[in-house]
Amino acid sequence: MKNFPTLEEIRIAHQRIQPFIHKTPIMSSEAINQMAGCEIFFKCENFQKVGAFKARGAANAVVKLTEEQKKNGVATHSSGNHAAALARAATVAGIKSYIVMPSSAPEIKKKAVKSYGGEIIECEPNLIARETTLNTVVEKTGATFIPPYDYFDVIEGQATCALEMWEEGIDFHTIMAPVGGGGLLGGTALTTKYISPITKVIGAEPEGADDAFRSFQSKKLIPMQGPNTIADGLLTSLGKLNFEIILDHVDDILTVNDEEIIAAMRLIYERMKIVIEPSCAVPLAALLKNKEHFKGQKVGIILSGGNVDLEKLPF
Amino acid sequence: MKNFPTLEEIRIAHQRIQPFIHKTPIMSSEAINQMAGCEIFFKCENFQKVGAFKARGAANAVVKLTEEQKKNGVATHSSGNHAAALARAATVAGIKSYIVMPSSAPEIKKKAVKSYGGEIIECEPNLIARETTLNTVVEKTGATFIPPYDYFDVIEGQATCALEMWEEGIDFHTIMAPVGGGGLLGGTALTTKYISPITKVIGAEPEGADDAFRSFQSKKLIPMQGPNTIADGLLTSLGKLNFEIILDHVDDILTVNDEEIIAAMRLIYERMKIVIEPSCAVPLAALLKNKEHFKGQKVGIILSGGNVDLEKLPF
Repeated sequence: MKNFPTLEEIRIAHQRIQPFIHKTPIMSSEAINQMAGCEIFFKCENFQKVGAFKARGAANAVVKLTEEQKKNGVATHSSGNHAAALARAATVAGIKSYIVMPSSAPEIKKKAVKSYGGEIIECEPNLIARETTLNTVVEKTGATFIPPYDYFDVIEGQATCALEMWEEGIDFHTIMAPVGGGGLLGGTALTTKYISPITKVIGAEPEGADDAFRSFQSKKLIPMQGPNTIADGLLTSLGKLNFEIILDHVDDILTVNDEEIIAAMRLIYERMKIVIEPSCAVPLAALLKNKEHFKGQKVGIILSGGNVDLEKLPF
Repeated sequence: MKNFPTLEEIRIAHQRIQPFIHKTPIMSSEAINQMAGCEIFFKCENFQKVGAFKARGAANAVVKLTEEQKKNGVATHSSGNHAAALARAATVAGIKSYIVMPSSAPEIKKKAVKSYGGEIIECEPNLIARETTLNTVVEKTGATFIPPYDYFDVIEGQATCALEMWEEGIDFHTIMAPVGGGGLLGGTALTTKYISPITKVIGAEPEGADDAFRSFQSKKLIPMQGPNTIADGLLTSLGKLNFEIILDHVDDILTVNDEEIIAAMRLIYERMKIVIEPSCAVPLAALLKNKEHFKGQKVGIILSGGNVDLEKLPF
């Protein structure tokens, strides 16, 4: 398989990041199973450190740095879970982290990064300013840039989530993950196809940010322009490396609209009593919309994170 | 110990209700521990069947009926978790349940009872109408009345929650539970004092419904009049049998105001990513208000349930 992480490398990554992560539980709901007509195993990455699977990839990238690189720390631009995850991983590893964030980022996100020990560098809220500022920071500090998803070590880290699912001894017919930049879906597909090639891997995406769906259909990477969805963790465009993995190893990508996402999100809150971000609800929404394809199956769904603004719940 | 359930009886009850309940997990949060200055083990009864510990007492009461009693089913008046719990326990046991509910009860509560197979009998929204209607139902059907908390078999069932906590092998210095009617706190105190007499058992109550606190202080049962608190699961007055157990076996009752309850509730949503009802947050609020008393301890806190109206979250 091209220059993708191997199963052996994913297993080693899993060992490597043990001190940085929780082994998250798998939960089920009889009521949701009845509604769906299949047996769903939710992998609860909302209970992960920093509240999202991003803790895995960030930790893996940090631990893999050389001693020389560690001296100068790490840097990224992000206003989401990757920023918090990288800040925490760096602090646990005893190195510095520089996080470029748009000045418009919510106070709560800045607070989270600071609380994990990250140094915030503010910039104008546009992509060019973010990249320019990041380049300046990297030049000045010598820090290593750790991108949020389009990066070998990050994908290798995210791939450890599916590894834990397979260690539970469940014969999944299908595993589903949301797709934004494609780090989680890519990693999940790699692990799953190594371990069980007959298992289907399906990505789920909001209609309002469906670049992965369109790229997958056309087999050509089409960047997202003007995404618009409640699933704020999935606004980013698919990464290049992630797209390659997805083309090779993912069986299908399904899309759902925001109404369907909110209904699935509500179901998870009400029936499972857990807090998830809207992005998490996308795979369940896609499954419920296409029930007939999953009838009687054992389906693994990765709940990617739980960092939601409680004051802005859509119900 | 007077005519209270014995440890042996509680253990048998736990075996008896196995087909009706989940063994709920214990969860922790590093962030909350740091804030609190002690190590807290949250027993997640929000993940229990019907979303609350009430599943335990109702199941125990139903299974203990004689075959003769089972023929005529069970009845209760309640608009809360006990109603849903009794309806479900009866359905699982293959018997009928009659639930008297005030006509003003929220549609969602009625729907829950119906979905579990309970037959709803509506009455005027006042206590006299509830009792009169219940008596009529019992006379007409021959059903056995299962009260929500002031009842031996129910307390015995609720006591199984603490039993599971002790089975985890943690040396609790303190165990805390919210107190409304006193079924959970009474059961928790019995189990805990049987197993570890030196462990403190502390009840936590909203200031706006502090009859247990006042009764405990004055050693005289003082019924609650005009309760007013966001913790809607704790509006009921302390039961007689429950009060006896609490006087004998509980070490202290602490009170907190609604602002403190909401802050603790928010902390649990944000840090633990789980959905709880406001009543659940009362013990954590009381702990955080009295940190100095718990310094360095291992504290067990029972999160009693997760049935909250998502449209009315206080944040």
